[in-house]
Order: sequence, then structure tokens, then C-alpha cells
Amino acid sequence: MSGSSTNMRLRLPLLCIILEVILIILFGTLVEYNEDTDAKHWNEKGKHNESQHENEFYYRYPSFQDVHVMIFIGFGFLMTFLQRYGFSSVGFNFLIAAFSLQWATLMQGFVHGLHHGKIHVGVTSMINADFCTGSVLISFGAVLGKTSPVQLLVMAIFEVTLFAVNEHILIAILGANDAGGSMTIHTFGAYFGLVVTRVLYRPNLDKSKHRNSSVYHSDLFAMIGTIYLWMFWPSFNSAITNYGDPQHRTAMNTYYSLASCTMATFAFSALVNPEGKLDMVHIQNAALAGGVAVGTAGEMMLTAFGSMIVGFLAGTISVLGYKYLTPVLEEKLKIQDTCGIHNLHGMPGVLGAVVGAVTAAVASKDVYGDGLSRVFGASESEDWTPEFHGGRQAISLAVTLGMAFIGGLITGFILKLPIYGAPPDTHCFEDALYWEVPGEEESHNELTEVSSPNEVEKLNS
Amino acid sequence: MSGSSTNMRLRLPLLCIILEVILIILFGTLVEYNEDTDAKHWNEKGKHNESQHENEFYYRYPSFQDVHVMIFIGFGFLMTFLQRYGFSSVGFNFLIAAFSLQWATLMQGFVHGLHHGKIHVGVTSMINADFCTGSVLISFGAVLGKTSPVQLLVMAIFEVTLFAVNEHILIAILGANDAGGSMTIHTFGAYFGLVVTRVLYRPNLDKSKHRNSSVYHSDLFAMIGTIYLWMFWPSFNSAITNYGDPQHRTAMNTYYSLASCTMATFAFSALVNPEGKLDMVHIQNAALAGGVAVGTAGEMMLTAFGSMIVGFLAGTISVLGYKYLTPVLEEKLKIQDTCGIHNLHGMPGVLGAVVGAVTAAVASKDVYGDGLSRVFGASESEDWTPEFHGGRQAISLAVTLGMAFIGGLITGFILKLPIYGAPPDTHCFEDALYWEVPGEEESHNELTEVSSPNEVEKLNS
Amino acid sequence: MSGSSTNMRLRLPLLCIILEVILIILFGTLVEYNEDTDAKHWNEKGKHNESQHENEFYYRYPSFQDVHVMIFIGFGFLMTFLQRYGFSSVGFNFLIAAFSLQWATLMQGFVHGLHHGKIHVGVTSMINADFCTGSVLISFGAVLGKTSPVQLLVMAIFEVTLFAVNEHILIAILGANDAGGSMTIHTFGAYFGLVVTRVLYRPNLDKSKHRNSSVYHSDLFAMIGTIYLWMFWPSFNSAITNYGDPQHRTAMNTYYSLASCTMATFAFSALVNPEGKLDMVHIQNAALAGGVAVGTAGEMMLTAFGSMIVGFLAGTISVLGYKYLTPVLEEKLKIQDTCGIHNLHGMPGVLGAVVGAVTAAVASKDVYGDGLSRVFGASESEDWTPEFHGGRQAISLAVTLGMAFIGGLITGFILKLPIYGAPPDTHCFEDALYWEVPGEEESHNELTEVSSPNEVEKLNS
Repeated sequence: MSGSSTNMRLRLPLLCIILEVILIILFGTLVEYNEDTDAKHWNEKGKHNESQHENEFYYRYPSFQDVHVMIFIGFGFLMTFLQRYGFSSVGFNFLIAAFSLQWATLMQGFVHGLHHGKIHVGVTSMINADFCTGSVLISFGAVLGKTSPVQLLVMAIFEVTLFAVNEHILIAILGANDAGGSMTIHTFGAYFGLVVTRVLYRPNLDKSKHRNSSVYHSDLFAMIGTIYLWMFWPSFNSAITNYGDPQHRTAMNTYYSLASCTMATFAFSALVNPEGKLDMVHIQNAALAGGVAVGTAGEMMLTAFGSMIVGFLAGTISVLGYKYLTPVLEEKLKIQDTCGIHNLHGMPGVLGAVVGAVTAAVASKDVYGDGLSRVFGASESEDWTPEFHGGRQAISLAVTLGMAFIGGLITGFILKLPIYGAPPDTHCFEDALYWEVPGEEESHNELTEVSSPNEVEKLNS
Repeated sequence: MSGSSTNMRLRLPLLCIILEVILIILFGTLVEYNEDTDAKHWNEKGKHNESQHENEFYYRYPSFQDVHVMIFIGFGFLMTFLQRYGFSSVGFNFLIAAFSLQWATLMQGFVHGLHHGKIHVGVTSMINADFCTGSVLISFGAVLGKTSPVQLLVMAIFEVTLFAVNEHILIAILGANDAGGSMTIHTFGAYFGLVVTRVLYRPNLDKSKHRNSSVYHSDLFAMIGTIYLWMFWPSFNSAITNYGDPQHRTAMNTYYSLASCTMATFAFSALVNPEGKLDMVHIQNAALAGGVAVGTAGEMMLTAFGSMIVGFLAGTISVLGYKYLTPVLEEKLKIQDTCGIHNLHGMPGVLGAVVGAVTAAVASKDVYGDGLSRVFGASESEDWTPEFHGGRQAISLAVTLGMAFIGGLITGFILKLPIYGAPPDTHCFEDALYWEVPGEEESHNELTEVSSPNEVEKLNS
Repeated sequence: MSGSSTNMRLRLPLLCIILEVILIILFGTLVEYNEDTDAKHWNEKGKHNESQHENEFYYRYPSFQDVHVMIFIGFGFLMTFLQRYGFSSVGFNFLIAAFSLQWATLMQGFVHGLHHGKIHVGVTSMINADFCTGSVLISFGAVLGKTSPVQLLVMAIFEVTLFAVNEHILIAILGANDAGGSMTIHTFGAYFGLVVTRVLYRPNLDKSKHRNSSVYHSDLFAMIGTIYLWMFWPSFNSAITNYGDPQHRTAMNTYYSLASCTMATFAFSALVNPEGKLDMVHIQNAALAGGVAVGTAGEMMLTAFGSMIVGFLAGTISVLGYKYLTPVLEEKLKIQDTCGIHNLHGMPGVLGAVVGAVTAAVASKDVYGDGLSRVFGASESEDWTPEFHGGRQAISLAVTLGMAFIGGLITGFILKLPIYGAPPDTHCFEDALYWEVPGEEESHNELTEVSSPNEVEKLNS
């Protein structure tokens, strides 16, 4: 990849403008307001004459905003832990998310079924688009610091498309449950990103090693991302479940899973350190694994008890993964995973899929009552059995892993072409390649001099 | 303005206390709970016997909180980009917002009509007060770093008052639409602030030039402001629209406009830089122009397609404004616009007004069905035509610009009096004038020494 | 406390794992979904056949999320003001909050009454658990920088338990009002923490004095905490009030109290400084006292007028407390109160209790109409009088203070045992004891060298 100039002056604007023009044209020809956002349909007489308050806006929008915060603040700031890659972390996150949510609206609308040739949009499609975007941002975590913004946009084009196809297979064809996306979002995004970073392997990444670490304040910025992800994860997992008890229950299960996961994270972070010191990398990441791991089973009758066990396991494997597995993956398998997404999204995602399959397999009318069909839509058909549904959940995991591997492989090789202005090995994890970075030291000294306490005091007197 | 002491010991406390005492007295004599917040009225038998859930609190409060975050975190942190003005940016933003929202409640209540001599307050008045406050904070962006807190409070007194008058003319007298405030908030706030900063022109501002720029971490703090503004703008534009489809549609249109705007911002930011590097100033500001530009038309049937075009245009003119227009304004017109509010709020605000006028002018019963009167209240009268309404929108823009110019001029000259303790030209953009600023270098060296790794390790063993 | 190693390798993991295992077992045996979260109960025929939208989730969850943000971002970042204690502030806040909310669910469920031997959980119990957690975090503010994470967890075990008992006495036995927790949360948490820190008095804390202060950026991080607490306080105070007018009114009263409090804070902060400079400590803390002080009376017909007077008083006593009382408490009473919780939660909490008692004592059917019983549940019984209720509010304050003193005393002596790895006097307020802290200076120089502008320019060309 070296040898190519990293100057983005033509490449980035050209790609952004072409993509946005395509998006605008496709939106113009394909996208329509849905029933709850269209002035004519919503106000048709006799239809919604009871209450404007029944518009789905009031029941989905607060969840949407929480998800939106996770996508833009959560993911964006979580990745600012690197000492000199804060602009790129927040900035590229912003760019690829803004693109992906538009592209996802089209791909999901197209794959999941048109209405008389049109894609219908409303708050639910906005949440789904943000979900798909989350998957791309997970993959971004694996290649963080080693890719140009042009590469990231190209990755997003492919990943969003494959995400929509995989999601369609799981939800519509296999009839699986995955409201919080343990499989569709986390497992898919993680293994897709890991395969991409494997293909883009840089044997000489050591040359940028000194920049591949945090400083004191960058770790605090990252904690903003962590805490927002942690707090709003209950909203994430419950955002598109059915109304009523499923949504309520999902939020609560996630809340307990995360609390338990945090306890495990602190415990194991201290335990694996010779001096018993806590490691910010673990706290920033592993404490979130509990949200990932109840992404599938959260809407089921998992109970607080079950959620806490799952959360505890997720935190444990995530810390151990950071400590013992990540170095092995890098050395033996040549997987350079900057943010350790395998530990935060990969393993916990697979755990979540398994927990979902098991929880589905033991579902019963006894426990769910008439609520059974509101969680498992297909359960109203006569030949539905919990065991069968559990099986479909397991197959869904396999399909997801397969799609992620093949998709990541193809995308990785496309991204390997030397035309995207990727950073050279000596300048990875460095904002100054793609950003105007302000001076720091100089201005600081100058400043100290100019605004000396004496001088300021004179002015105040 | 120089020569006057910047000591705030008497001036600031005196002004704050007098203002708050006046506010408290006026609230005591003029303000009452509205029907949804008053224990007696709300619980009158037979009136609300169906459901407590119909209280407007449940349909407006989540939007209010998002707007509140934009006002206090969004605006506050957006302005922390300056290297030594973070305390003042967040702090003065906090102070003038806390004052303005109280003063705005009175002014808006007074101008928009009393109920038996009383101003009624509830969540909608809270949103409107926050909106008015937003306008003041926009103007603050123009004079940032060059004004004392006393000046800012005086500016707020006048600006809030004129805002309420202008808003009343537009909404109540002209019957215009402006739910998201392209005109009332952004255009008004921007041109008011630009005229004020013109009047306060400092020919020797160069002396503080070295402080009028960012450092690495201050740019990251500013991104917190940017991202929160960006994420919650859909809530801002939809916060006071009619219930149901208009609110839902407004949020969605804004979402698409912002996404498209972000793509344009990245494209043009790289394009106008010789090395193709992205500029944080553009990303922090221009990416938000898409929200401003659909502030009027967002509630109309603009479609996602239309919103994306508007957003793309807004981002483009905003970046170009920062690059090419701002230096001209400063050199030729002597407008020193610290945050470039002309590019973020001024031009996009005017664009939004024009888009609103055009979209209104092409509205039809065909497209809106029975929803027409829920967007255009006056459309139920017989002589209403879309073209006529479009005209009223255009007149509203003209009125707003006129009010902003005259108001800014008067306010500017009042602020020019040498009694407010404004900073001297040599000490603009400097927190130390008005704040106790902690030492940095000293304590840092001391610290490194004291907590040397060896010593700490000894303790852990 | 000195002499003991601060190594956490065994102590912290052991405690976390044991606690979490106990929690999981107790949740497994005692906790059940409540009616709104249980699939079977919620979907029983004929019961909820009207609308899924009546699930309490839709009316409490947005408030819950705001409270959640206050607990994890608000409290966490508010305490990052110390120059070298940011990891611990956010991190330990995270840990003890994650533990406390689980433990509080059990204690509150147990004390407030079981349902057929089971604790029922749902969004309301989640809010209550977060409230109880807030109390622990207030106490954390007093001992900040002087305690090990193990000590903090032990403190949380006792404080949560006593909180639940005290809350039960106030709400269930005395029938007092305290929806926003002026007494149960703020007064209790503050005086509990103050007594604990008194018992843990360190005569030689001076040795860490140089670290017990802020630096420029740490003050900005703290402002993130402040502003989030400030913005969401209306949600906090109204989160568990009755539906409809009480919830709406509480949010609005809090909004006005805080705005007024902010004006007082800026006024007195400048007034008590010889040069008229504002002090970040005051702005960060005292501006929040207005929220504390309407925690009891907020749901009553306090009016905006009353709220603003209370807020103004709260801000005033809080600033004066920081300036004049805190040094006295430390010198004379040996109370080392790191964050000044006496000024933010202690005095304003007592003020809030008094305001609540007075406001209750003047309540009347004239003012509240049929809403009276929705604020004062007991008012439907014949022998209820406002004066009597005011008396009960006053007794509640006394009970709370008593419980806090005795509880703090016992807990303090337990925490004094030399087995928890507390920091030595020379290393208080220092992250490096319990955290892997990244280097700063070194990497920075190295970096400047490597990514020199010239080199980067070469790459871009």
C-alpha cells in the first residue's frame, strides 16, 4: 500500500460527491414517507381519528435518539483512546456513519421488501439504518489507524449491502429473533472487520507502534464513549422489539447484564495484572460486552438472574481475550485488531447468539402465556416448536459467520488496491496525514508568557 | 473599550442579582401554571378523566430535553475550540442561557398574549424559551472572546426582547411557518450578532491572534458540542410542530438533511485544502448547516429527497463561506466573526427561509390531503393559496433581517460604552481575565516527580 | 491506614466476584418480572386489551435514561476535576454504581415489601435503584482520592442498606413526600459521607496537597458532568412522581430553580473573589444546588416564583459554603470533604427538606383542587391536615440526619480497618496506585519528532 500519496484532495471529494449524488437520485426515485410520516395517509378520515398520540413516533423516537447517541458519540469517542488519532476517530466515524445510514436505508428497504415499488421510511427505518451503521463502525475498530477515509467509505458500501442481505436471511427467511443484533450487528461486524484487517495485514506496523497507545486525556475522552454506550445499551437492544412487555423487558434485562458485566470486568482486569492495577482498555471495552451478549435473548424471558449470568460471562471472556487472545491473534494469525473488537463484539456476539438459541429452545406457553407469539412471531403456526426455533437461531449464527468471512475476504482484497491513499506503515495512527492539526507546544509557551498572572492582575485592578 | 478595568467583582454580581430579583418579581406577579401543570385545573372532574397519559408532558418533554442538551452542551462545547477560552465558552454560555431562558419566558409570554393578565407556562413554553436562548448563543459565537460576561448579559436582555417581537410578527401576524427557526432563531441570531460584532470592531485584534486558534484537545472538546447538536437537531426542528405526522416527518427530514450535509462538508473541506487535508473548523460547524437549512420546510412534505438536496447545498455553501467569505468579511467589512456564525447560521438560515417559502408555495391538497391544515393552519380559510403563503414566508425573511440589523445596531452601540469591563485587545480569547485558572506546567512536573513509577510500584508490592 | 500494600490483585477481584455471585443467587431466588415486564401477566386476556402503549415503560423510561446519564456521566465526570484522578473518578464511579444499583434493587425490594415472597422489578425499580446509587456517589465525593476501590464497595454495601431502611421509614411509615430526594438522597448521602470522611481523618493529607487541585483540561471534563447533571435534574426530580400534572410540574419547577440558582452562583462566585474572578469549583457545583433544594417541594404547587427564590438561596449558601465554611470544617471539625458535598448536597438538601415541610404545611384544597390527593396520598383520610403533614416532613428530616450520622459512624469505623489497601497520605488523589497510567511526556516528544510537518507534507504530495 505504500508508495501511494496520502493526499485526499481529489479522491475524497470525488467519492463523497458521487456517492451522495447517487444516494439523492435513488432516494428521489425509490423512497416515500410511510403511513405515519405522510400528511395525506396519516390524516385520512376514520383511520386515525382517535389520537395523534398513536403515531409510532412517540414510542420509537426516544429509543432512536439513544441509539443515535451510541452511534455518533459512543462509537466515535470510544475510539479516541489513541494519542494522536482523535480527529480521525470522531471525524471518520462521523463521515462513514452519515454515509452508511443513508445507504442502509436503501439496501434494507430494497432487500426487506418494497411497497408498490417504493421504500417506506419512518422512525423504525431510521433505527434500522443506525443499527446497520453500527456494524460498519465495529469493523472500523479493527482497522482503526491503518486506513484512509476513502478506504473506509468503500468498506461501508460493501458491508452495508451484505449486512442487509444477511439480516434479511436471518429475520425474514429463517425467522430468527435478533432484536438487539448479537448476530446481525455484533458477530457480523466483528468477523467482517477481522477478516478485512487480516487481508490488510501490515508486517511492519511496528514502525508506528509508539503512536498505537493512549495518553492520559485521550483515555478520558474514550470513557465518554464507553459510558454512553453502556448507559444507552438498554435502549439499543429494545429499540425495535414489539411494543409493551417485550420492549420493557429487553431494556431491563440489558441493564442487569451490563451491571453484572462491569463487576466481572473490574475483577478480572485487576486479577490479570501482576500489580493488581486496573487497565483502561478493559474498562473501556469489556464492560460493554454484557450488552452485546443479551442482544438476542434480551427480549425473551431470560430473567434478571439469567441476564446477570450472561453479563458476568461476557465480561470475563472479554477481559481474558484482551489479555491473552489478542496478542496470539496478532502474532499467529496476523490479525491486527486495533480496538480489540474480537473481545468486545466477536466473542460476546457469538455468546449472545448461543444464549439466544438456548433461551428460545426452552421457551414455553407456561412461561410466556399469550405473550409467546409476541416474542416468537412464528409460534402461532401449528408445527412450531421451541426446539425447532432454537435450531433456527443456531443456523442463523452459522450463516452470519459465513457471510462475514466471505464478505470480509472480498472487501479486504478490494481495499488492498493501492489507489486509496492508505497511510504508510510509518504513519499509522496519526491524524496529521488527513487533518490540519493545530500546533500545541509553541502556542502553549507563547501563551504562558503573554497571559502571565502579573499582567492579568494588572488588568483586573 | 480599553482603559477600563476588567475586574468583575462589583459589576457582575450587581447585574446578576438585580436581574434575578426583577425576574423573580415579574414571575411572581405574572406567571401561572398552565392547564397541564396546575393541580387544580388538570384534575377537574370530567375533563381529563380518561388518562393521565394525555398530559402534553409525555409528548413534548423528550424533545425538550434534547433541545436543552443542544443549548447547554451543544453550544457550550462547540465554542471550546479556542485554546484558552474553554472556561468562558462553557461558563458564559451557561450563564447567559440560564438568564435568557427566564427572560424569554416573560417576553414570549407577554408578546404572544396573556391569559387573563397571566403568562401560562408548561413544557411548550420551556421549549420556546430554550429556542430563544439559542438565538442569543448564536450571536455569542460572533463576539466570542471579545466580550465580558456583563456585556453578554446586556446583549441577552435586548436580543431576547427583539426575538420575541420578531417571532410574534412572523408567527402570529404574518402566519408564517418556522417550527425549526431557520428565520426566527438562526437568521435572526446570526445577523444580530454580526451587526453587534461589526459595531464592536477591534482594529488591533491581531494582538490576540496567537490565542484565536485551537489546540489538539480543545478541538476534541468542541467535537462533543458538534456531535450533540448534530444528533439532536431532528428533535430541535420537530419540538413544537403539531403532533403526529408533522412531528414525525420533521425529525426524519432533518435526519436526512444532516447526513447529506455531512457528506458535502467532508468533500469540500478536503477539496479547498491544497494538501487535501480536512479542517476541523469545517467539520465542527458546516456539518450542522443541514439542520439549519430545513428549519422552516422540515415540517412540510419536503421528502427525504428534497431534504438531502437542501442539506448538501447547505454544507457546501457553509464550507465555502468559511474558506473564502469569512476572510473577506473581516478585511473588507470589518466583521470579526469568531465562530463563523455567518457560515453556520447566517447563510444556511437564509437558505432555509427560501426553501421554506418555495416548499410552501407548491403545497397542495393533492399531496397533503387532510393534513394540509395541520401544517398550514390558515389553509382552512377560503382565500388561502399556497402562493400567497409562500409570499408571506418571504416577507418574514425580510422582516427578520430588518429586525436583526436594527436590533444589532442599537445593541452594539449600547455594548460599546466603556463600562462593562471588556477585555483589552491584547487579552482577548483569554480565560485568565475572568476566571481563576489553575496552573498547568508546574503542577505537572511536580506530579511526574512525585508519582514516579518506581515509587508507586513499591507501594503496590 | 498506612503500612498496608495498595496492591489490589487479590482483594478487588475476590470482593467483586463474591459480591456478584451473591447478587446473582439472590436475584435468582427473589426477583421476578413485574406485571409490565412479564410476558404472561401483561398479555393476559381482557386486561391490557386496549393498548400496548399503556405499558409504564413509555411514561417512565425517558426519565430513567436521563437519571442514568446523571449517575454515570454526571457524577462520574463531575469528579474528574482533580488533575491526576480522572481514571479513578469515572472508573470507581462506574464500579460502585454498577454494584449499588443491583444491591439497591434487592434492599429496596426487600424493605418496601415483597409480593408473595418475591421482589418485582420494572422501570420504576430501575429508577429507584439509580436514586439509591446516587446517594452512594454523593458520599464518594467526600472521600474522593483517599479510598481504595475495595473500601468504596464496602461503603456501598452499608450505605445502600441504610438508604433503603431510611427511605422506607420516610415514605411508607411517616408518609412523607420526597420524590426528588432532598432528604432521602441528598441529605442522607451528604451527612453519611461527611461522617465517614471524619472518621477516616488523615492528619497528614497535606503531603498530597499538590495533587488535590485541578488543571485546565480536567476542569473542562468536570464541566461535562456539571452540565449533564444540571440539564437532567428536572427529569431526576420528576422521575417517580405521579403521572400527569405532578410530573409535569416537578420538571418545570426544577428547571426554574436551577436557572435562578445559576445566576446566584455566578454573582456570588465573583463577589467573594478579591479580583472578581469566577471560580470553577463554584460553577461546577453550586449551580446545581437549585436542583437539590426543590427535591421535596418540586411536585407541590411551589410555583415558578417559589422555585426561583429557593434556587437563588441554594446557589448563594452553596457558594458561601465553599468559600467560608469548607475551610472551617476541615480545620476545626477535621472533615476533609474533597468535593465539598456539604455545600452541594448537605446544606441544599436540608434547605430542600425545610422548603418541602413549609410548602406541605400551606397546601390547601383551594389551590390543589382534586389534585390534592395526587400529591399528598394521605390527604384522602379525614384526619389529615396540611400542618400535620408539614410536621411529618420535618420529622423525616430529623430521622434522615440521625440515620446518616449513625450509619456513617459505623461504616467509617469499619472502613478504618487496615485491610483494604487505602492509599498512603503521600499518594492520595493519584490514579497510578490503582491504574495502569499511560506515559505522557515521553510519547509526546517522540511524536512531535516523528510526525513533523515536513515529513507529513512529503507523504501528502
